[in-house]
Formats: sequence, C-alpha cells, structure tokens
Amino acid sequence: MVLIVQKYGGTSVGTVERIEAVAEKVVAVRKQGHDVVVVVSAMSGETNRLIKLAKDIDDSPDPRELDAIMSTGEQVTIGLLCIALIKRGCPARSYTGAQVAILTDSAFNKARILEINDLPMRRDLNEGKVIVVAGFQGVDKAGNITTLGRGGSDTTAVALAAALKADECQIYTDVDGVYTTDPRVEPKARRLDKISFEEMLEMASLGSKVLQIRSVEFASKYNVPLRVLSSFEEGTGTLIAPEDETMEQALISGIAFSRDEAKLTVLGVPDKPGIAYKILEPISEANVEVDMIIQNIGGDGKSTDFTFTVHRNDFKKALLILQDTAQVLGAKEVRGDESIAKISLVGVGMRSHAGIASKMFGALAQEGINLLMISTSEIKISVVVDEKYLELGVRVLHNAFELDKNN
Amino acid sequence: MVLIVQKYGGTSVGTVERIEAVAEKVVAVRKQGHDVVVVVSAMSGETNRLIKLAKDIDDSPDPRELDAIMSTGEQVTIGLLCIALIKRGCPARSYTGAQVAILTDSAFNKARILEINDLPMRRDLNEGKVIVVAGFQGVDKAGNITTLGRGGSDTTAVALAAALKADECQIYTDVDGVYTTDPRVEPKARRLDKISFEEMLEMASLGSKVLQIRSVEFASKYNVPLRVLSSFEEGTGTLIAPEDETMEQALISGIAFSRDEAKLTVLGVPDKPGIAYKILEPISEANVEVDMIIQNIGGDGKSTDFTFTVHRNDFKKALLILQDTAQVLGAKEVRGDESIAKISLVGVGMRSHAGIASKMFGALAQEGINLLMISTSEIKISVVVDEKYLELGVRVLHNAFELDKNN
Repeated sequence: MVLIVQKYGGTSVGTVERIEAVAEKVVAVRKQGHDVVVVVSAMSGETNRLIKLAKDIDDSPDPRELDAIMSTGEQVTIGLLCIALIKRGCPARSYTGAQVAILTDSAFNKARILEINDLPMRRDLNEGKVIVVAGFQGVDKAGNITTLGRGGSDTTAVALAAALKADECQIYTDVDGVYTTDPRVEPKARRLDKISFEEMLEMASLGSKVLQIRSVEFASKYNVPLRVLSSFEEGTGTLIAPEDETMEQALISGIAFSRDEAKLTVLGVPDKPGIAYKILEPISEANVEVDMIIQNIGGDGKSTDFTFTVHRNDFKKALLILQDTAQVLGAKEVRGDESIAKISLVGVGMRSHAGIASKMFGALAQEGINLLMISTSEIKISVVVDEKYLELGVRVLHNAFELDKNN
Repeated sequence: MVLIVQKYGGTSVGTVERIEAVAEKVVAVRKQGHDVVVVVSAMSGETNRLIKLAKDIDDSPDPRELDAIMSTGEQVTIGLLCIALIKRGCPARSYTGAQVAILTDSAFNKARILEINDLPMRRDLNEGKVIVVAGFQGVDKAGNITTLGRGGSDTTAVALAAALKADECQIYTDVDGVYTTDPRVEPKARRLDKISFEEMLEMASLGSKVLQIRSVEFASKYNVPLRVLSSFEEGTGTLIAPEDETMEQALISGIAFSRDEAKLTVLGVPDKPGIAYKILEPISEANVEVDMIIQNIGGDGKSTDFTFTVHRNDFKKALLILQDTAQVLGAKEVRGDESIAKISLVGVGMRSHAGIASKMFGALAQEGINLLMISTSEIKISVVVDEKYLELGVRVLHNAFELDKNN
C-alpha cells in the first residue's frame, strides 16, 4: 500500500460530469489498496467569475477580502467531489485550507506555506477515508483565509505530499505529460517518461508551461516524486524525480523557447570596474527583471559593449532608463531589438558530454540562423535568435539531437 | 453611540450594484457615530445554484459536504461588501461563521447555535471597523462547517445582537415592515409601527412570512429589539420588541391566515380516557404535525367526535392513518376536508378586553361565513372556515376592528 496525492486542475473538475469522472479514478486507486489524498482547484471559470465580481466593485479590491472570496471556488469543488465519492460507497471527507490547517504567511493573494498539520488527515486516512483538500488556499496565524496565487493548487498538492511523506504526487492536467518541445512547433515532439527536477525547472521557466515552477521547486526541495498525467486520457504521463545516478542519462531532454524577449545593448561604455552594476541597478530598481547578460570588450579594446534581455512588456521602460544611464556613463550608443526569441537546449547529460554546444551552433548555422546571444549553464545552453527563426531553430535542434527517438 | 446589527437578505445583496447600495447605507449609519455589525445572506439564487450542483451528483447529498458547499454563498457576499466598504474609506473586516466563531451543534443543514465568541468582533469594533459576518453558517466543536437551515441568516443576526448586547437588530428585506394583514388580500392593510414578540410569533407562524420564526423566538428570549425594514425604500419599518406595559395596547394587532390547512374528523368514537392520544399518536409518528384540535361530546352523549387540522400536504397520509385508527377504535366514520382555511385575530390587547371573540364571530356571521372550528389562546382567536370565504373573512375582520386606523 502506498500513499498517493492527486491534484486535479480546473478543467478536470470543470463540470459535474467531470467531477464524477474524477471520483471514478479515485475509487479505482482505492480499490488497488492505496491511500489517496486529492487536491482540487476551482471549477474552470469560477475563479475568474469571483475576481470579476470583486473588480466590478473595486479595481484593486482589498487583498484580504479578495482571498475570502476566491477561496470559495475550491471549497465548492471539495464538497462536490466528496459527495460523488460518498455516493460511490467511498468514505471521504473534505478539508478547506483552514481546516487542514495549511498555515501560511499573511501575504494575501500570494501567500507562502509555512507549515502543514498532518494529524487530522492521518487520522482520517487510518479510518479508510479519502481526503479531499481545497487547493490554492491556506490560513494565516490570525485565522485569515489566504490564497497562494494562480497555479497554487499544484503547490498545495506537493506541500501535502511532502508533509504526509507520500510516495508520489500526481498532477492531473489537460496534457498527458512533459514533451521534448512544444508539439505545436515540432509535431515530432515526444512525451518524456522521466525528467529530472533540474531539467523540469529549466524547461518550465523557459516556457514549457505544464507545471507551476514553484511546485517543482518545492517537490525538488522535499524530494517528492511528481507525475504529470492527463485527466482525460489513459497513460503513465511523465515522472519528474531526482536525477537518477544509476541510469544512463539522455543527452538532451528537451528544447524550451520563449517569444517574450527583447534585447538591449549599450555600445562603447568606458570600461571601468562596476560598470555592470551601474547599468543594471536602475533597471532592477524599476522592477524590470533581466534574463541573459553579456559583456564584451568593444572594438577599440578600451570600451565595453553590454547586452541584456528583458521581458518584451518591459522593453520600452528599460530602453528609456538605459538611455539615461548611457548619457551619464558617456556611452556611445544604445540599441534595442524587440523581435528576438530565445531557444534553450536542456539536459543533465551535458554535464558529462562535451561538444553539445558546438553541435547545437553547427546545426543552427547550417540553416543560416545567426546567433545574437549565447548563454550557458551546467544543464542548459540558450541562444537568442531573430524571432522569425524560432520555429525553424526548434525543429532543427529537435532533429539534430534526435529527440523524437527514445534515446 | 449605539451598536446596531443589520441583516441584509439575498435580494438586498442580489447584484454588485445592490451590494454597493448596502455599503452606502452602512456608511451613513457609521457617519451618525454608531457601531455596525452587518450580517449578509448569499446573493439571491446562489444557494439554489449550489444545491443544484450537489443534487446533480446525488439526490441526497452528504449533509456535511452540502454545508461546506452552501456556506460559500455567504462567504462571497461578506468579501464583496467589505470591498465596497473599504473602497468608501470605511474600514471593514469579513468573518465567516467559523472565523467568528459561531459555535453550533453538529446537525448539518439545520444546526443550532450554542455559543458565540464576541471577543474578536469587539476588538475590531473598538478599532472603528465595520464587521461583516456570513449569515446562515457556523462551525461545530470539531471544526466542521455547519448551516442553520433556510432563513438562518435572520437567526445569525439576532444571535450576534444578543451576544454583543446590541441596541437593535435590523432585518432589511423586500417588504417595509409587518402589516395588519396581507395587503394582497386587504389593500387597506396598514404597516404596524410596533408589535410585541408574542404577537409577531403568532403572526409569523400563522402565515405572515416576514421573519423566520426561530429568529423571533431567539430575539424574544434574549430581549433583542428587532426591526423589519425595506432595503429599497426609506422608512422606519416595524419594531418588534418586548410588550410595553406603560403604553396602551392596541386591541388587535393583525389578522393572520393560512390556506394550507386540511381538516380531519373521526365521528362516534367510544368516549374512553386516552382517546386523544390513541388518535394522534400514529399521526405524529408519521411525522405529520397537527395544528388545531377539538374534541366534543357526540350527539348520543356517550361517544365523542374528534377533529384536527394538518398541513394540506399531509392530508392524504393522515387520512389513511386515521381510517386505520378509526377501525381499531370502533369509530363510526372518518371525514376529511381539504378546502378549508384558517383566519386568526392576534393582539395582546385581548388579555384585558372581553368581548373580542363575540365581536369577531358576529362580524363573520353577518356575512354568512360559517365557522367550522374555533380555537383560542391568550392573545389569539383562530377560526377555520370554508376556503372560499378566506379573503372575505379577512376583510370583514380588518374592517370590524378598524385595523386600517392607527388606534
């Protein structure tokens, strides 16, 4: 007998019929003799409906009261799922975040989980009950209802799995796993059976939006094996787990990409110590996040060229700031480019294999794709290219590294 | 400065616009320097929507889970009203039943309030905050969410007023007060400025459905002055308060009536001790509530005739039971009548004035209205008449006792 935490998102519980289908799945796992804790989101559309009600009154609704309102979405789903389970002769008991209690800080709308009381749940599990917990919500020390922010139900599931030392945390969603890349760009993209936490973090943060990144971090920190599965199709999904030393690693796990990038360059900055700080400090003070950063000696050997990327939404803001900074520093010129994209090759196999980067650059060069920026980390190589080459670049690399084959 | 508890029902908070209108009313009371605790229902239609979701899964949904679901309706309203108040610069704080805590027993769907913790609310009131409490809900000792049954928000308001020793509990609804009788039957019906708890209890239980009867009992028990007001019109409504010894009492306060009655008679029962028990016991065992009961010596002087009324919905069930009983007891005959109605004259003035009954009977007789049953209590006289005379009877009595005049 194992303990499984399952999480079903908004689409998976979007109608009464789908909630009944979830109940069937849970009953099937119970029949295999396993203990089950289920975490559910609000029925799809419900959270938005509730937020709209609040915003119809005030564009910036009081955050404490917004949480009191939003948390009702999941509370309805836990009750409905329990009714569906009990109707099937399966003892079940619903828990709101406060009832668990999932103790959080008091940062309304984006609270962080501090502690989970697992005792009442363990008592119910011992009595043979299925436990159904409202995702996305908690309670602070003063008894206020808090929410964890969008996608927070994934975090709830992982946190519960960690607190209960569950054998696996299964995230049911509308895709059947993690793919080598976005199948809309490369139809030959292949579902991965397994991926390491680190790879998943690189994939998720770079644009393959399957799981909330916070929940992957959480799972990694507490070593909770995560599995992404489809609510609507049979299958074993993708297991996200600690890196497995005994197995031979695939060289490359996948290709992530992002279209939301913009590039800023300041040319001919007099090369003095602290120049990077002077350029980036005003940018970060304006709450603009910087992604890739490259600094090169300028053509004259005395000055330096400085390039970085930001989210495309922040481009105009960053450009204005950079123009000011350039004047202060006596730089030659500021250039901006909004039509770029980032492609990243991700794989823990890079650690032990040389030549990945040159193979990557070679494959792209062969198609005439010019690299505007390059940045590498231990398990990832990212390149910035002209936006128009994004799809081509992804397909070229998918092919070059034979990601359609189970290697 | 006084402390006022206000309760707004589902229609009064049925839209975002109406919630904003409620916020305006509350702000106006705050500006007069009063402390305010507001109790709200779910937005109209919301509780039914939630129940339907549950019943779409199971016709008899698990009561604990149904309460978890239903209680979300009020939780949304408290958040929305607080957002509307805070937007108006009026500090406010929402409380679910569990957050108060309103401690109840564990009778899900029809819980009874055991105790209210007034300390957190007092602290917030002292800080100048308006408190907005979810009606209709509480929490049991084990932390389960409970609901008080339909109309329970009135009970919540009165219980809070009692716990906080409020100066007045104002129930805002879609009528502007308690009337001498139903204005749809007698257009000359007059709004009462004041009515005693006892009179209101007789009026409410007899068909003038303005307030939930349980909340009136509660208010009476704890001596909380209740006021019924309209959410949509200005006015002082009707004050329901302890009987005022110093003022001269109006003879009659109002005329209640009910169309939902049916009459059953068993004729010629051998007159032995315990006969009433033998007739009524099987009826009450079948969960049929009996209203009026009359026993008379039969025409032969040796047997007895026994008549009682039940709710019309229970008529067929009660008739079958009574036919069985009649056989066992050796009674002559069983008769039933579904087309009757009850008219009741209510007024504490009856206590000190003789001749009310004869005036009532005389007025009805003059119009040829035959009385099928008569029953009296300290502050009420009820008669059962043929259903077709209901409207006429109400108007005749309203006129005979000059209830249209402020006497």
